[in-house]
Amino acid sequence: MTVGGEPGAGGRARLRVEADQVLTGDGSGQLIADGAVDIDGAGRIVAVGRRENLGPPPTEVRTVGGLLMPGLVNAHAHTPMTVLRSAGDGLPLERWLREGVWPREARMTPEDAWWGMTLGSAEMLLAGVTTSCEMYLFEEAVVDAVAASGARLVVTPGVIAALLPDGDVAGRIAQLVDFHAGHHRPDQLVTVGFAPHSVYDLSPEQCGEIAAVAGANDALFHIHLEETRAERQLVIDRYGKTATQVLADAGALEGRTIAAHGVWLDATDQRLLAEAGAAVAHCPQSNLKLGSGVAPVLDLLAAGIGVGLGTDGAASNDDLDLWEELKLAPLLARGLSHDPGAMDAATAVDLATRSAARAIGLSDVGVIAPGARADMIRIDLDQPAFRPGLDLLTHLVFAGSSRYVTDVWVDGRQVVDDGVLTTVDVERAMAEVGERGRRLAA
Amino acid sequence: MTVGGEPGAGGRARLRVEADQVLTGDGSGQLIADGAVDIDGAGRIVAVGRRENLGPPPTEVRTVGGLLMPGLVNAHAHTPMTVLRSAGDGLPLERWLREGVWPREARMTPEDAWWGMTLGSAEMLLAGVTTSCEMYLFEEAVVDAVAASGARLVVTPGVIAALLPDGDVAGRIAQLVDFHAGHHRPDQLVTVGFAPHSVYDLSPEQCGEIAAVAGANDALFHIHLEETRAERQLVIDRYGKTATQVLADAGALEGRTIAAHGVWLDATDQRLLAEAGAAVAHCPQSNLKLGSGVAPVLDLLAAGIGVGLGTDGAASNDDLDLWEELKLAPLLARGLSHDPGAMDAATAVDLATRSAARAIGLSDVGVIAPGARADMIRIDLDQPAFRPGLDLLTHLVFAGSSRYVTDVWVDGRQVVDDGVLTTVDVERAMAEVGERGRRLAA
Repeated sequence: MTVGGEPGAGGRARLRVEADQVLTGDGSGQLIADGAVDIDGAGRIVAVGRRENLGPPPTEVRTVGGLLMPGLVNAHAHTPMTVLRSAGDGLPLERWLREGVWPREARMTPEDAWWGMTLGSAEMLLAGVTTSCEMYLFEEAVVDAVAASGARLVVTPGVIAALLPDGDVAGRIAQLVDFHAGHHRPDQLVTVGFAPHSVYDLSPEQCGEIAAVAGANDALFHIHLEETRAERQLVIDRYGKTATQVLADAGALEGRTIAAHGVWLDATDQRLLAEAGAAVAHCPQSNLKLGSGVAPVLDLLAAGIGVGLGTDGAASNDDLDLWEELKLAPLLARGLSHDPGAMDAATAVDLATRSAARAIGLSDVGVIAPGARADMIRIDLDQPAFRPGLDLLTHLVFAGSSRYVTDVWVDGRQVVDDGVLTTVDVERAMAEVGERGRRLAA
Repeated sequence: MTVGGEPGAGGRARLRVEADQVLTGDGSGQLIADGAVDIDGAGRIVAVGRRENLGPPPTEVRTVGGLLMPGLVNAHAHTPMTVLRSAGDGLPLERWLREGVWPREARMTPEDAWWGMTLGSAEMLLAGVTTSCEMYLFEEAVVDAVAASGARLVVTPGVIAALLPDGDVAGRIAQLVDFHAGHHRPDQLVTVGFAPHSVYDLSPEQCGEIAAVAGANDALFHIHLEETRAERQLVIDRYGKTATQVLADAGALEGRTIAAHGVWLDATDQRLLAEAGAAVAHCPQSNLKLGSGVAPVLDLLAAGIGVGLGTDGAASNDDLDLWEELKLAPLLARGLSHDPGAMDAATAVDLATRSAARAIGLSDVGVIAPGARADMIRIDLDQPAFRPGLDLLTHLVFAGSSRYVTDVWVDGRQVVDDGVLTTVDVERAMAEVGERGRRLAA
């Protein structure tokens, strides 16, 4: 069964893409030499394998050389904040929010958010990031901008009590139920979830209520959790227990949950998350830049918690290039555990693709396999960084970079062609973000 | 006074390069808008400033737009090892050497080293790295390959007792004194130093002797120091004191010293290095990848020790892209100290340019200032990552990358033009390294 796409496409291959190597992203890190991927008219992969083992080619065959791999999946982003890139640099999270971010956000219009989202989507697509899980306000602008860019989107509009007029959380929840009903269109690349900001912003009851609404809609529950030591202590001081325990006790971990950051999760928190089947978005670059620390990602994986990599926003990263997280996650895991075997290249790729997709509730993304959506990127292997080439997967993770991404397909549609993004007027977006960023900072 | 170059060039500007922004790299992070750099016929900078404040232009004016900054300086590299990229991935240092590296190096020919050095030089120049400080064997091949690439070189041939026939360290030292006499030509971009491998490989007396020879030649003394905890303990077990104390007691820290890695330096070691005026090459990516740990770079800086960033070799990094260290150093300093103000963008740039050049003994490199050598790179600012542009220096460090380097000059000579390296046959070098890497691994 195909989802969406042209009537009658029905699983017949429309396009074959042939490459020197195909990294299917099944978690093993295995490469298929002289590989090919067949895609149907609905943007679904129908076959992958060695060229010689696939059936007769469809009408359209593209031989691209290089390496094909799943598009990267950004499990935690606030992409409209691209218009605030580098704001508040050097401040710790709490002051960064109060002095660097919130004063600017208070002046932000939906148009500002639209342009920030548009430029950020361009940056991500050019870096080979085909899906992002967005937590922000201005959800209409987010959906509209991403649709124009051609990227896949999981949009989880924020519920932030501190920023609501009269603190009307119930009104905001009702609004988001309507938003879900109006915009949840997986066949049009948009999945809608719910994003309570954090346990320190909302009450346990409010978190529980939002989780219930998310559960009733079979939707993702996306929340900031244990990003800083100060935030952890604040919650413990207020409730006499950790934020994870607050969520568990409020029944808020019963649906599909992704907790962003998780830097300060202790063993008990980790057990609660594992038991709940919750996932964690690991954002190492943002966590380092804000001085928050490093999430215990090896412990999370050992506990059986799903992990996806995220960039966080461009005001705390300061870019949306998930290749950097793909490299940083194994480097930190190895260096801080003093064990160079702690995380191999295949695991790192998994955290940026299949595992990240699962963490945000997408089961048919992040892998090149029959039945999966055709979100793929091509890497130019004809580069010094990929020689001698005896361990291509290790080269890819530790010597690779977004600079080698040349082509990008989302749902079978090519949106980056030989380094050129065809869906967004990038020059215009840069000019708009420059001007709007200046106005917001004024 | 000019060094080398055309007769009669004598400080008169031959070329003016005009850019939208010039980052002079004086450590302040200050940018000059609508800037220009005048360069004489001998490759020396004679003036820098706002265009309107410079004198009448010379005959040749190039308006390049974007941002001009000093070329990056790689303070610790083993670039011929590019032919061994990713070898031994997942192994800790001692096993990585014994199982991944040394068996291959035992089969390595000068031609293999030449091609590894050539491809690595290409990779570095394309990433905007204009100088590297090389510690390796095959020193003739290193000098020859780098000369062909057009990069600046500090070559410090290794003295490795374990690899010398009959352990003839004295013979190797005599050979390197001759090599210094024959190849030390700063006016032709080559500076020669001496590189005893480590305190765990050589005796204290041998280290002292090499330091004396380096001192007599006013040359750099370049040594691995405190890379792993195991290595630290081995030296303490053998001598009853740390490697730094061994060097100090042997009189080996009296000249111009750069110690690579320094991950496990304690406060006493740091004081000894500071008193000696020694510098440390900080190689965060390699140290993380091999599970060695993270050097206490904030402590080193606070102690007054000069720090330069280094990639180490491509078998432990696994690339030679110093932009990654430029980003990683402040991220780690911030994240691990839990202080986002711990290292600002200007300091990070300094560690990759001026401070790195000083650390390897070059006083007129790493800065765009009158009297300095014209080693410069151009960054394309017309990119999403550099918007909104209100804090361009922070964008450059935390959202920048080698992918935005378009043009590179070394000693006033342009070697990368709009992304194309004009000095090296990169295709040929990739093919050679691919083939030779396979042979060495067989």
